[in-house]
Parts: sequence; structure tokens; C-alpha cells
Amino acid sequence: MSKKLEELQKYLEKMNRYNHVVTLLYWDMRTGMPKGGFESHADAVAFFSTEQFQMSVAQELGDILDALMAPEEYENLDETWKFIVKRMKREFDKNKRIPTRVFEKYVRAQSEAEHFWEEAKNKSDYSIFAPKLKEIIELTKEITGYTDPEKEIYDALLNQYEEGMDSAIIDKIFGELKEELVPLIAQVTAIEKPANPKLEGRFDVDAQEKVQKMLLDYIGFSWEKGAVGRTEHPFTLNFSSKDVRVTNHYYENRPISSIFSAIHEGGHAIFEQNVNPEYNGTVAGSCCYMGIHESQSRFYENMLGRNKNFWIPIYEKLGEILPQFKEITLDEFYEEINRVENSFIRTESDELTYGIHIILRYEMEKAIFRDNVDVNDLPALWNKKMQEYLGITPRNEGEGILQDMHWSGGSFGYFPSYLLGNVYDGMLKEQVEKELGDIDTILAEGRILEITKWLNEKIHKYGSTRLPKDTIMEVCGREVTAQPLIKYFKEKYPLR
Amino acid sequence: MSKKLEELQKYLEKMNRYNHVVTLLYWDMRTGMPKGGFESHADAVAFFSTEQFQMSVAQELGDILDALMAPEEYENLDETWKFIVKRMKREFDKNKRIPTRVFEKYVRAQSEAEHFWEEAKNKSDYSIFAPKLKEIIELTKEITGYTDPEKEIYDALLNQYEEGMDSAIIDKIFGELKEELVPLIAQVTAIEKPANPKLEGRFDVDAQEKVQKMLLDYIGFSWEKGAVGRTEHPFTLNFSSKDVRVTNHYYENRPISSIFSAIHEGGHAIFEQNVNPEYNGTVAGSCCYMGIHESQSRFYENMLGRNKNFWIPIYEKLGEILPQFKEITLDEFYEEINRVENSFIRTESDELTYGIHIILRYEMEKAIFRDNVDVNDLPALWNKKMQEYLGITPRNEGEGILQDMHWSGGSFGYFPSYLLGNVYDGMLKEQVEKELGDIDTILAEGRILEITKWLNEKIHKYGSTRLPKDTIMEVCGREVTAQPLIKYFKEKYPLR
Repeated sequence: MSKKLEELQKYLEKMNRYNHVVTLLYWDMRTGMPKGGFESHADAVAFFSTEQFQMSVAQELGDILDALMAPEEYENLDETWKFIVKRMKREFDKNKRIPTRVFEKYVRAQSEAEHFWEEAKNKSDYSIFAPKLKEIIELTKEITGYTDPEKEIYDALLNQYEEGMDSAIIDKIFGELKEELVPLIAQVTAIEKPANPKLEGRFDVDAQEKVQKMLLDYIGFSWEKGAVGRTEHPFTLNFSSKDVRVTNHYYENRPISSIFSAIHEGGHAIFEQNVNPEYNGTVAGSCCYMGIHESQSRFYENMLGRNKNFWIPIYEKLGEILPQFKEITLDEFYEEINRVENSFIRTESDELTYGIHIILRYEMEKAIFRDNVDVNDLPALWNKKMQEYLGITPRNEGEGILQDMHWSGGSFGYFPSYLLGNVYDGMLKEQVEKELGDIDTILAEGRILEITKWLNEKIHKYGSTRLPKDTIMEVCGREVTAQPLIKYFKEKYPLR
Repeated sequence: MSKKLEELQKYLEKMNRYNHVVTLLYWDMRTGMPKGGFESHADAVAFFSTEQFQMSVAQELGDILDALMAPEEYENLDETWKFIVKRMKREFDKNKRIPTRVFEKYVRAQSEAEHFWEEAKNKSDYSIFAPKLKEIIELTKEITGYTDPEKEIYDALLNQYEEGMDSAIIDKIFGELKEELVPLIAQVTAIEKPANPKLEGRFDVDAQEKVQKMLLDYIGFSWEKGAVGRTEHPFTLNFSSKDVRVTNHYYENRPISSIFSAIHEGGHAIFEQNVNPEYNGTVAGSCCYMGIHESQSRFYENMLGRNKNFWIPIYEKLGEILPQFKEITLDEFYEEINRVENSFIRTESDELTYGIHIILRYEMEKAIFRDNVDVNDLPALWNKKMQEYLGITPRNEGEGILQDMHWSGGSFGYFPSYLLGNVYDGMLKEQVEKELGDIDTILAEGRILEITKWLNEKIHKYGSTRLPKDTIMEVCGREVTAQPLIKYFKEKYPLR
């Protein structure tokens, strides 16, 4: 091995230790820490993430990367290290261009904006948040100008979360979807279906946690390489492919919420657990493309979990853990988990209307970054679009424009990845059926792990080494298209 | 504030951050981490604890401490900082005298000995462990020669865990206890009492965890400053007085085990939660005296928890959480939690025979360090003492000399603190009754928090700032004596 490559590996090892404890601090803050521990934890996070950031822009690292980019060194690297060195060099250059002063201002603005957003949301008062939102928008523009001087700003932001995607491609995909979804939703929701009261009792939270474990087992989560925790908002977090954690939230009166969060986060976790372990501790490991990542969580959640056949082999077991399910037939359960309803909150929406929530946010972000719409005009624009697409108008700003925390953290351009994930899923479903046979049959026969294995081989093991577009092209043999997803929706809805 | 003191505080702040993440890594390794995460966690522990150790012996720290020890600086410090500076200076000098080569050898020997001990215990074969035990004994002697050149070795070891105590004092205390305990135990166990079969069913572990929470609430554990976790061996761990964690282990067929572990660890935790928060991050905070610490956990566990009146206000609640307890009368329960039995395993023994297990270990340690008994002769010596004191002989080395992990980690001189804790408890019980009134009545009337408050004020808030002997003198107004504990045992047993 080249001496320079060894140097890089040593450097990464040290930097990763900082990253490791910052990840652990975040995990503990959300799952174990009592309130009194916050101050010390936050102090340690600030200290160790600064150490890590400083290491990531240090000249020492730049010199090692430059040396490895020289042709005589670069040509001798294997494909993985070529990818790692090139990617690190690109990120190093980007980050180096941000003036420290601007970066610090951004970090401070972010934490302030999150704070004000929370208050605004609790009070359902957008005016509390608006000035901070404006500030974070301006700073995002400024920083993107440094990191991606050659790109149009919103395209640069989209590219951050799903590399290779820009608004031209997304406009086309989302346009096709919107055209089909809006009338389909109108048709489906014309017949009102009330919620099934059998699913509104008191469901023991410890038993719900047992259901989560049963589901994770069932879909192929590895307990050797994973663990679960309880938290306010479900999430997945990974130290490496060997240690991936998922969390869940159990509401006594909403078992379906924790059931589908379990499957969703399980999908994210199975992805990370199956990335090639040789990539651990480098930019090749862990998947950094949010659309591809969401495609996996949503594939398990929707394409598999909302299929009636998914439940056939385990529905009795579900009833053993949560006895109320013995009183609910599988058909009733299936109806409930696929009940389409025009509702305000994205995270609680069904798979059909979900896309509309994303398209709305995508259009809002374009309005912000491309049309420079004033922040004060955003709530009205939001409400207008809700009315136009779903025929409903939020009763207040809390269930309207303030519902998501993404923008307060500066995550502009993130939302589209959720729907891109769905779009990929339509294509992946077709491909699975081409290669493994009818999904209904596979699920009904309890052979779901065959699908997991297929996803491991086709997608998971690559981690970040393959761009989203290339992944789709190599797995499905064609460009990204919304047609399979549209076909899936049209065949499924209205539920028969 | 003096510039030097500010320097010390900055230095401590940085050193504490390393300590903070090492503590968190340990916590997570025992409560959350999946198997696959071990390697990275262990690597991070090694890295950050080395950083911390290097900071603790760095010349920079020595210089700051020397400057603060100079009369003109020292006289201007308040009492707390005088204590901190003096204590840190003493520890710094001790640690500085250990040659790095010897320290590294010791650390390696420790981790090897732990590994071999585990194997030896699993195979119940002392010969696997003996050579490593010999090595760790020799290294302990060598290191103690550096750290405490003026002290006899075993006295120095005792002093490490319970400062101010030596074998002269302990000989006297344990001697009195042994004289009374051996015949009392013989008398009590002459009438055989079999275990109550009602307590041998299947007790839901989630419900047992709910019982733990109820008990912690009841005795005054703060959830603002504390959290719980599940683990193999129950322990308490603290980041600061604001973040104290306890763990528990739930055996389906042994609810009493988790109940008393909950109370015991709760006692440790209540201590740490109530140390003066101004001491956080210094040697004044957190109590480093193991005898005093055990006195608190064992006070809650035995003096309160094994008193029938403790249960009167909550016995019905216990039955609501674990319905089997509805079938067990409080009298039956009381009998069971105070059933005296000559048994092999210290951690599972009743409060009466427990002391004998400790005295035996104390005598073994004296044989090792004072009489230089050959490691190969230790198992026979152990068995001889068991036969002499409890009339039983271990059937194998696993339930004999190999049962505890303490020696493998080099913790010689630690065991006596458990019994010293009990001895202090006898005195504390008398003092509580003098100042607050009859404990039976206080407990029966559900006023246990008055006792917690008393302990907070009399003991907990001082952290490490007061030596054990001074604590006992100031709280109880006399020297440490075993008489109150003996009186307590004689009044309680045989159970009436």
C-alpha cells in the first residue's frame, strides 16, 4: 500500500473517532439522556464536532489528498479508494471555499432558527419564525455561492441530497405524477371512508415495542449489527454497517403509527447494515443519497408493508402480541392502512396523497430560491396550493407551513428525495417481479427475505459508491420514470 | 478569581469532555450497543481514555497545581477549591511516580486477567486463572510501592477505596462482627426454611421494569437527573449530579432479584443526584469512598427495603403491576426477602450471611498481601474458610474462589467496603431514629422521603469532600463501631 494512502487511513481513523462520539452523543440525547444531562452533552457535541470539522478542512488533509490525486499515486489506487479520494477532495475544496466567518454565522443562525421554529409551531404563529427563515434562506444562498459557484442555487441544493438530480429532471417526473395523482385522489376520496374504531383503543406500548421487534426480525434486520431505542421522532442512525440503530415512538391509541415507523426505519437500517463493510469509516460507506435511502425505507413501508400479503404469514403473531388485533380481520386492517384521506400533515398521510405533500413543498422551494418570493407571502402560497391540490385549507399555520422542521435546519432541497424514493420504488417493484416473480406470492408465502437479499445485492452493498441515476440504470435498465409508480397507484386505488 | 484557578478550571473542562465521552461509551457498551459495535466502541474508549490519562499527568497540569499550592494563591481559595487543588496535587504526584512502562504492563495484565478469569469461571477451572492472578498481584504490589511508598501494601490498597481505613481498624470491626455473626447464623439456619414456590413463576420482565420505576419514584430518585437501562449486571454510573444512570437485569423467574437491585442501585443514584452541583466536574463531586457509597445503596436495600413497613404503602401497587403478588401476602413476601440461608454466592446471599462472605474475602486478601500465600493454595484456603464459617464447601471453583471478577481487574481491598457500608448503616439507622423517630412508623406512614431528605443533607451533598471517618463522626457523633449493626441483626433474627 502507498505511504500516502496509509497516511490518509490514519487520518480518517482519528477523524472518525470524533465522528463516532458525536454520533453517540446524538443517539443518547434522543434516547437515554435525562433532561439534566443536556448541557454537558451539548457542550461535548460542540467540542467534538468542531474538532472533527477542523480536521476535515485542515491543510494536512488537503496535502494528503493532493498527493493522492497526482496521477502516479491515483492510478495505483483500487476503484474504491479512487472514489474515496476523489470525493473527499471535492468536498474538501467546497468546504475550504466557505469563509469561516460565514460558516459560523450559518451554524448560529441554524440553531436560532430551529429554536424559533419550535416556538412558532407551538404557538401556531408564523410571524415568529419568518425573520429567521429569511436569514437562513439568505445564508443558504450565500454558502451555496461558495460551494457551488457554477450551479444555479436550487439545483445545487437538490444535488446536495440526491446527486445528479436537478430541477429539469424533477419537473418532468413530478409533473407527470401531479397530472395523474390529483384526479386519482379526487376520485378515491369522493367516497368518504371513516377510520375503523377498532383501531382506536388503548394498545400497550411495551407490546407495541414487541411488535416492532417481530417486524424487524421478519424483514431481515440484524440484531448482531443493530439495536432499537425509544424517542420522540423515529429515526435511523449508524456508526458503521456493524452498528445501526433505529428508534420508534409508541402512541397508546395509534398502533398503526409505530407499526409503519418500525417497517420504514427498518428499511433504512437494513440498507446501512448491508453496505460493504470494507467501506466503513470512509465516504464510500453509508449511503449519502437521500432519494435512494428513502426508496428503501418506503419500499418496505409501502410496496411491501401496505400489501395485504405481507401480513398473511404474521397476522396471527400480531394478534398474539396485541390481542386487540384478534378482533380485527386482516381485510379490515388492510383497508385501514390504505385509507386515502385529504389531510394536512405530511408525515401522517397515506401513500397516495403523500406525493402531493412533497410536490407542494418542491414548488414552494422553487418559489423561494428561483422566484424570490417574500417570506411573508409563503403561508398564503402554501394554503393556495393545498386548496388547489387536495381541496383543503389548513386551519392554522401550525398544521400548514410550520409543520416540518426541515427549513429551520437549512435543509432546502431535501423534500423531493422522499418522492423520488417513491418513484424509484415503482421501478424497483417492477424489477423485483421481473427477476423474482410476483410480489404478492412471495409475500404470501413468507419469503420476504428473498426480496431483502435481492435489495442487498442490487443496491445496499454499494453504499455511496454509485450515483442514484446510475443505480437505477444498472438495476432497472432504464432512466428514472414515474410511469411504474403511476401504474401501481392506478392498479391499487380505489381499493377493491 | 485568580488567573491560575481559571486556568485549572479550563483544563478540567477539557479533560472532563474526554471523561464524559468515555463514560458514555461505557454506558452504551453495556446498555445499547449491538455486538457488531464493540470494536469501534473499544477503539474509541482506548483513544479517549488515553487522551484523558495523558492530560491527568501532563506537566502543564502539574505546573498549574504547583502554582495554586503556593501559599499566596492557596490562602485565597475557598474551602472547596482548597480541597480540590490539594487532592489533585496528591493524585498527580502519585500517578507521576508510576513508570509508564509499569503502568502499561499493568493495564495489559488487567485486560488479560479479566479475559482469563472469564474463561476460568465458565470452565470452573482455577488453574486457567492462577498465573494471571499471580501476575496482577505482583504488579499491584509494584505499583503500590510507587504510589504509596510509605504505607504497608494492603493498608495502601484499603485506603484507595475507603480513605482513612486500615487493617487495624477493620480487623477490630470485622472481628467483633464475626464473633457474633457465626453463631447467630448457625442458630437461624438450624431451622431450614424452603423458598416460597409462589415466587418462582414467570414474571413479565416489562412489568418488572415498571416495578423498578415505581420503586425509584417511591424512594426519591429524580427523573430530571436520571435514567434507567437494561444490562447484564446492574450498576450505577454518573456523568455529573445532573445525569445519573442506573441499570437493572430482569430474570423472568426471579422478581425479587430485580426488585432489590432496583432499590440498591437507586440508593447509589440518589446519593450522586444530590451531591452539591457546584462540585460537578471536579474531584469534590461524585463520592469516591466505596464504603460510604455502599452504605447508601445498602441502607435503602436492607435497612429500608427489607423492613416490612417499607412495603405497606406500596404493596397493593406492586400487585397491580405484577398480578402474581396479589396471591402472595405481605407476610409471605417479608419472610422470603429475609430468608437466611448458607449459600455460596455473595451477590445472591441474604443480609445476614452477606457479611461472612466479605470477611472471608478480607482474610483472603490479607493472606495474599501480608502472608504471601501462594496463588495455588488459595482455593483450598477459600474452601476451608467457607466450611468453617458457613458449614458448606463449594462444589466447584466457579461457585468458590472464581465467583467475583474484582481480583481479575486488580481491585484488591475493595471487598471490605461492602461490609463497612453495612456497619455504617447500623449506626445511621440509630441516628435516623434519634433525629426523625421510629423508622417502622415513618415507613408504614409512607414518609420515606423524609429519610431520603435527611440522607441528602447529612451525607449526599458533601460528595467526596469529607473522609468516611469524618462523615460518621459528624453524622453519628462517634467512632465507627459494629455494635449497632450487631444489635440490629440480633433484634431482627431469627425472624419473628
